[in-house]
Amino acid sequence: MIISLLTDFGIEDGFVGSVKGVIKTINPSVDIIDISHNVGSFDILEGALVLKAAYLYFPKGTIFTVVVDPGVGSERDAIIVKTKDYFFVAPDNGVISLAVENEKIEKIIKIQNEEFFLTRDNNTFHGRDIFAPVSAYISKGVPVESFGKEKNNIIKVDIPRPEIKNGKIYGKIIKFDKFGNGITNIEDIPSFKRGEVRGIKIEKLASSFLEGEKGKLNIIKGSFGFYEIFVPLGSAKDMFKLDKEDEVVIRV
Amino acid sequence: MIISLLTDFGIEDGFVGSVKGVIKTINPSVDIIDISHNVGSFDILEGALVLKAAYLYFPKGTIFTVVVDPGVGSERDAIIVKTKDYFFVAPDNGVISLAVENEKIEKIIKIQNEEFFLTRDNNTFHGRDIFAPVSAYISKGVPVESFGKEKNNIIKVDIPRPEIKNGKIYGKIIKFDKFGNGITNIEDIPSFKRGEVRGIKIEKLASSFLEGEKGKLNIIKGSFGFYEIFVPLGSAKDMFKLDKEDEVVIRV
Amino acid sequence: MIISLLTDFGIEDGFVGSVKGVIKTINPSVDIIDISHNVGSFDILEGALVLKAAYLYFPKGTIFTVVVDPGVGSERDAIIVKTKDYFFVAPDNGVISLAVENEKIEKIIKIQNEEFFLTRDNNTFHGRDIFAPVSAYISKGVPVESFGKEKNNIIKVDIPRPEIKNGKIYGKIIKFDKFGNGITNIEDIPSFKRGEVRGIKIEKLASSFLEGEKGKLNIIKGSFGFYEIFVPLGSAKDMFKLDKEDEVVIRV
Repeated sequence: MIISLLTDFGIEDGFVGSVKGVIKTINPSVDIIDISHNVGSFDILEGALVLKAAYLYFPKGTIFTVVVDPGVGSERDAIIVKTKDYFFVAPDNGVISLAVENEKIEKIIKIQNEEFFLTRDNNTFHGRDIFAPVSAYISKGVPVESFGKEKNNIIKVDIPRPEIKNGKIYGKIIKFDKFGNGITNIEDIPSFKRGEVRGIKIEKLASSFLEGEKGKLNIIKGSFGFYEIFVPLGSAKDMFKLDKEDEVVIRV
Repeated sequence: MIISLLTDFGIEDGFVGSVKGVIKTINPSVDIIDISHNVGSFDILEGALVLKAAYLYFPKGTIFTVVVDPGVGSERDAIIVKTKDYFFVAPDNGVISLAVENEKIEKIIKIQNEEFFLTRDNNTFHGRDIFAPVSAYISKGVPVESFGKEKNNIIKVDIPRPEIKNGKIYGKIIKFDKFGNGITNIEDIPSFKRGEVRGIKIEKLASSFLEGEKGKLNIIKGSFGFYEIFVPLGSAKDMFKLDKEDEVVIRV
Repeated sequence: MIISLLTDFGIEDGFVGSVKGVIKTINPSVDIIDISHNVGSFDILEGALVLKAAYLYFPKGTIFTVVVDPGVGSERDAIIVKTKDYFFVAPDNGVISLAVENEKIEKIIKIQNEEFFLTRDNNTFHGRDIFAPVSAYISKGVPVESFGKEKNNIIKVDIPRPEIKNGKIYGKIIKFDKFGNGITNIEDIPSFKRGEVRGIKIEKLASSFLEGEKGKLNIIKGSFGFYEIFVPLGSAKDMFKLDKEDEVVIRV
């Protein structure tokens, strides 16, 4: 059984270590696999994108513990979503919504049963005190109904959709990856005529990174499921000073 | 059995990989869990704080291998501290002292038996050549007495304590976490009247991050066991240009 | 059985999570150990250096999955190198060549059998779609011959060798480690008289970091197998504004 972790905790403070310690104390035999702990602080959309791109590659039965939690200590719900193939344990703020919308939801549980919490009086670190132990007990076979009452729906992340008018797609950059590629919010380009971002021409719709024109901006369907602005063997972000939210216009 | 690693090795150079390879060669079935490898280079105090905040969440029997080691290759001791519930393997420079002072110490061993070392002539990488194999052999059940002679005490890290005078607590920022929260050295605030750091007002003593005043400095008891200066959903460090060592004054 | 990962994928995007998910889906019982995921983007030489410094510390039988892959989607080969003690799975671009040149090569296989691929039509993420599943099947005992045809040699990384003339060694800095030490390409210094980098004197050939002169540049044989420029308890890179490619001259 795997518990897969995705958080914005960073890797320098030992927060992730505490979470893993809690899990291993409850279920020593569970396998813990990191997706990332370097989601931008409080960045629910980035967490949702990273989860959506990665979760499908995990074995059936995997428990995804996803803690990007700007509302920790407030009235936001903590939830378990059981789908046909997976479990998702997270704050109910949209961070699991992009992944879950592809899955067959079987049950949504609002986590309320404090028996399973590590402590009841900490309002700053629910990753360690609530999401970690609940995930660990699920991995031991505790039925999701034990953790609280069923609810009917979850909050969806507000992912900005591109606009299409006059033969143009107006999208934007929603994230950069480690290579400096600019992930856009554009999922479909029926036919590529030309494009631009920040007044800079996008030369080519490529099918591999090396196919792009050297030293110039190109676009490709990437592993996040969206089109990405890239420079072959370079950082589009650094070379062309691109920013998040930059508008990307594609003429189709 | 778990070996839990905390170092300042960083994650880009493969140093941690070598350490894990050594451990797995000696004990293939041990579980290795990272606390952090991004403690500031040579920063014993930060290592001690991170260890203290995380270790208690690990199962009994866990071996903590803690390598923040500015004195590598010098005459500083390498030690094993066996407590009632845990093992700590580290250079004797204070890095485990904040954790160990809460535990019931059963034995302190000065590591000297070179039979357990990977190599005897390397003076730059004791993490790989001494601390890793010793930890792995402990995980296989080798009694701590086998590694060297008993000693009586360990070096304590010099954690600066706050001063209290004229109804004011004078503390300082000793670390920032990934979110830009400024961890102070203040453990107790009997009653909060007002506070400031760098001439900037600390608005509120909050009990959850969202309770703080938006866009302003607030203070909260955090997961390191100390009060932390924070901005709700923001980075106190970046927004107010705070630095390590900045004085924090609380009127009580 | 261990699969050990070394990539330039970074840790923020979940790419490594996908790779691990694929591996665990195929072989749930394999142990996955990270060497590093923060090799500089597309930096084959750095990947080769990090692998060479770390691989020997892993148990026999370990499968090293090394993905620094500027040529992804192009005609470069994907290969398996089976040596007497290890397996290496990587693009054939030199990234495994420094490690493999120390090993007894038994077989080089060009990976071609698409049966073992996750998908056949993705040209951007071979780490996930080719190198991960192939490595996982090797860990399950699938013979390397099953993945493709034998080939005779692999591409070697172009590691710049130092020049020696007139009693001087002319080397250069090829990498910095996390501590700001400047790893040179110099493997042997028969006798050290004096040295300099950027016109700054290298004071001492030390045998431990603390032996060096404080606040000054020194040199030591380090864990990458090369001489390293360092400042005791400081960052040579930051304190003396050193750069990659800086010339290092040693008078012998």
